Amino acid sequence: MNYRSIAYIIGWVFNVEAAFMVPPVIVGLIYRENVLPFLFSILICLAIGIPLVVFRPKRQHFYVREGFVTVALSWILMSFMGSLPFVFSGVIPHPIDAIFETVSGFTTTGASILSEIESLPKGILFWRSFTHWIGGMGVLVFLLSLLKLAGGSHMNLMKAESPGPSVSRLTPTVRSTAKTLYGIYIFMTILEIIFLLFGGMPWFDAITTTFGTAGTGGFGIKNDSMGSYSTYIQVVVTVFMILFGVNFNIYFLLLAKKWKQALKSEELKWYLIIIATAIFLIAWDIRLVYASFGETLQQSAFQVASIITTTGFATTDFNVWPEVSRTVLIMLMFVGACAGSTGGGIKVSRFIILLKSMRKEIKQYLHPRQVRKIQIDGKSIEHDVVRNVNVFMVVYTLIFGFSLLILAFEGTDLITNFTAVAATFNNIGPGLELVGPSANFGLFSYPAKLLLIFDMLAGRLEIFPLLLLFVKDTWKKF
Amino acid sequence: MNYRSIAYIIGWVFNVEAAFMVPPVIVGLIYRENVLPFLFSILICLAIGIPLVVFRPKRQHFYVREGFVTVALSWILMSFMGSLPFVFSGVIPHPIDAIFETVSGFTTTGASILSEIESLPKGILFWRSFTHWIGGMGVLVFLLSLLKLAGGSHMNLMKAESPGPSVSRLTPTVRSTAKTLYGIYIFMTILEIIFLLFGGMPWFDAITTTFGTAGTGGFGIKNDSMGSYSTYIQVVVTVFMILFGVNFNIYFLLLAKKWKQALKSEELKWYLIIIATAIFLIAWDIRLVYASFGETLQQSAFQVASIITTTGFATTDFNVWPEVSRTVLIMLMFVGACAGSTGGGIKVSRFIILLKSMRKEIKQYLHPRQVRKIQIDGKSIEHDVVRNVNVFMVVYTLIFGFSLLILAFEGTDLITNFTAVAATFNNIGPGLELVGPSANFGLFSYPAKLLLIFDMLAGRLEIFPLLLLFVKDTWKKF
Repeated sequence: MNYRSIAYIIGWVFNVEAAFMVPPVIVGLIYRENVLPFLFSILICLAIGIPLVVFRPKRQHFYVREGFVTVALSWILMSFMGSLPFVFSGVIPHPIDAIFETVSGFTTTGASILSEIESLPKGILFWRSFTHWIGGMGVLVFLLSLLKLAGGSHMNLMKAESPGPSVSRLTPTVRSTAKTLYGIYIFMTILEIIFLLFGGMPWFDAITTTFGTAGTGGFGIKNDSMGSYSTYIQVVVTVFMILFGVNFNIYFLLLAKKWKQALKSEELKWYLIIIATAIFLIAWDIRLVYASFGETLQQSAFQVASIITTTGFATTDFNVWPEVSRTVLIMLMFVGACAGSTGGGIKVSRFIILLKSMRKEIKQYLHPRQVRKIQIDGKSIEHDVVRNVNVFMVVYTLIFGFSLLILAFEGTDLITNFTAVAATFNNIGPGLELVGPSANFGLFSYPAKLLLIFDMLAGRLEIFPLLLLFVKDTWKKF
Repeated sequence: MNYRSIAYIIGWVFNVEAAFMVPPVIVGLIYRENVLPFLFSILICLAIGIPLVVFRPKRQHFYVREGFVTVALSWILMSFMGSLPFVFSGVIPHPIDAIFETVSGFTTTGASILSEIESLPKGILFWRSFTHWIGGMGVLVFLLSLLKLAGGSHMNLMKAESPGPSVSRLTPTVRSTAKTLYGIYIFMTILEIIFLLFGGMPWFDAITTTFGTAGTGGFGIKNDSMGSYSTYIQVVVTVFMILFGVNFNIYFLLLAKKWKQALKSEELKWYLIIIATAIFLIAWDIRLVYASFGETLQQSAFQVASIITTTGFATTDFNVWPEVSRTVLIMLMFVGACAGSTGGGIKVSRFIILLKSMRKEIKQYLHPRQVRKIQIDGKSIEHDVVRNVNVFMVVYTLIFGFSLLILAFEGTDLITNFTAVAATFNNIGPGLELVGPSANFGLFSYPAKLLLIFDMLAGRLEIFPLLLLFVKDTWKKF
């Protein structure tokens, strides 16, 4: 294990995090709030970060193992540091609560332990939403766009942090790929802010709401999430949630004017088909709940977009919707967004691979002697990727079951427990019943919160990087 | 597609079913009941069955495809015929209800649409329980022990009907394997009857209860299932449920005095570990519900054995148990019994394969250049089997999700719907809430019942045979 290189990267993560805490300081100054909590946190980040990066390690190569460990440790330590402003400001006094809120932010989950947020300092609200934006595209992807490392290392770090079954290099180098991704991310962020300002949303609301949308996070700044905003604003947010749930490769292809290639993406097609079907099903189910057809459709579309992209904003308490809607929403929780987006969940592309391998197996029964390979977008999918997706599903199910069992000891009902795990593990935010959109995660005990912290991190990093930390062999020298 | 051979086998299935209806006629005569419903049903079976078998087809070879189609069709048609006595006797007037009850019997599910069973004619009660015994080991396995078919055909039929990821031939020919399996089955059945009689259980109760245990079915003859029987009888049933959930290969090895090989079975080990852990967890959880430690342990053991073996007997209304117990029971619903037993569910061996492939994948991250094969009981598992297990899980999840969505339209709550699908698809019987042990499946609409009929059959035949019926290519000539 190349500890020196790992420490070097983590040092940079701390320094970058310090830099990311400057905007909330500015916000705090504008609103004449106490910015000391942030200044202290910045100092602590730099005090650890700078010593770790002064000496550049000679051997900089990252193997898969080191890439995974680096990413997992970075996310854990980054969440520790990110929770400091909450503790120092007294907004969330207990460290575990503060870490829960920060992990929920960075992993773009949006599950909160706070019941009252409108009275919080603006600097804190800004930081809370900003963690979504940072975590959405990934801190290491950000670092990779700046740092120069030995060949191959970039890819192994990027693989560990980027969601989806496989990562494709868009440009010749990973570094320029990372830059392109962040470029698109920033452009779309600015676009949404403009659209929201156009609808008369105050500056502060527009920026924080956009952070929540862009990272597919879901932290709001109002107690009723998005419920009190105008229809125009809700529609804009619906559209942008769906856009941020699309694989960013598609935008890259559009930029490169490869329209045809972009639009024939199977994942995009199924993502949109699932969204349309779900909107239709739910709209039919809630047809008697709302006054007009327009409102029914809009409410349905907002909640579907919010859940499938794993954002978790709400314009209404969908916990009280009838069973078909609740069932569809629970299913969307697992589907998740596209690979290579800022969204969580299992990802549409994994389901496509699974469905195609199912079809292949059935054909195999009929024509035992034929050998086929699964294809997506006309390209063969390597056997390794298919196997990895299958194993992912196994580990996913195991962790899910284990979490459900542990939560049962809380004494809360099955649906609360089931959706609490689904909402954290898939990085969504709200679930149903006691963790529904009008409730929060404050009810759970600290051990349960630690479990859900693990689930949120495992969900964001797609399990394996985090799991590797618990394997003895990982730490062996060889 | 070799239609002629398929028809020949189905003809024999009808004739065998006619023979299987003779015991209920005898029971009816003993209790001086109207046996005409059974006699009519026997006549109809023979009227179709005999013409189909008079001419032996020349080409008798069964490929995988034909094996699957034959088994799927046999089970569907057999259930039609088996439902006739219920309709003719007027006990269950509606055909869909009658087919639901029969499929529930043959698939050893034990989910009932009847709310009052104690007043039913004894012949009907006997037939209801007898369907469990017939379905447990399988009608085609029974046929295979009698019929002589061309080489290879037996295996392809047996594969389609026997539960578990792979079928091993115990003896040189499939025919003698089938005979041995039925021999063990009959021996254990008689053993349980003796044990129950010894506890003072009436003859009729002992036989029907044993049928329910042996097939891991769960139809009882009392409205409170097993609740009113003595502790001795409940303990005997607990032990036999666990025994019938064991892979029958183990008993074969014991018969062959290969003790070492039998006892080192990994599946057996994990099956017992899971049972012990679940009993302990639930006993701890319900420690305040029952008066003594002994009763707590016994109640926990009975329900754990009943659910993991997918039998579905109940000695108490576990729906009102606290959440840890309910969660553990739900998980056991999915685990299921051992492969090659009469039990349903996903099967312990599938989970072992999945867990081992997970461990392999994690090792692969650490040592990318090593290639391993998964081993069980010291034998390498072929890549084909692993892939098939993975695909099984995918199709399983899909059908589960689809069923859940359709049931949502019933307006019943999520837990009822979820456990109704789990209890039928895994061939258990009772679920929780509105389909709990003290309730029944009568509340669902006919479309929902048809769906659950499909789920029960898909669960018993492990999906693929049934699924193949719906694939266009299956019916193509080639």
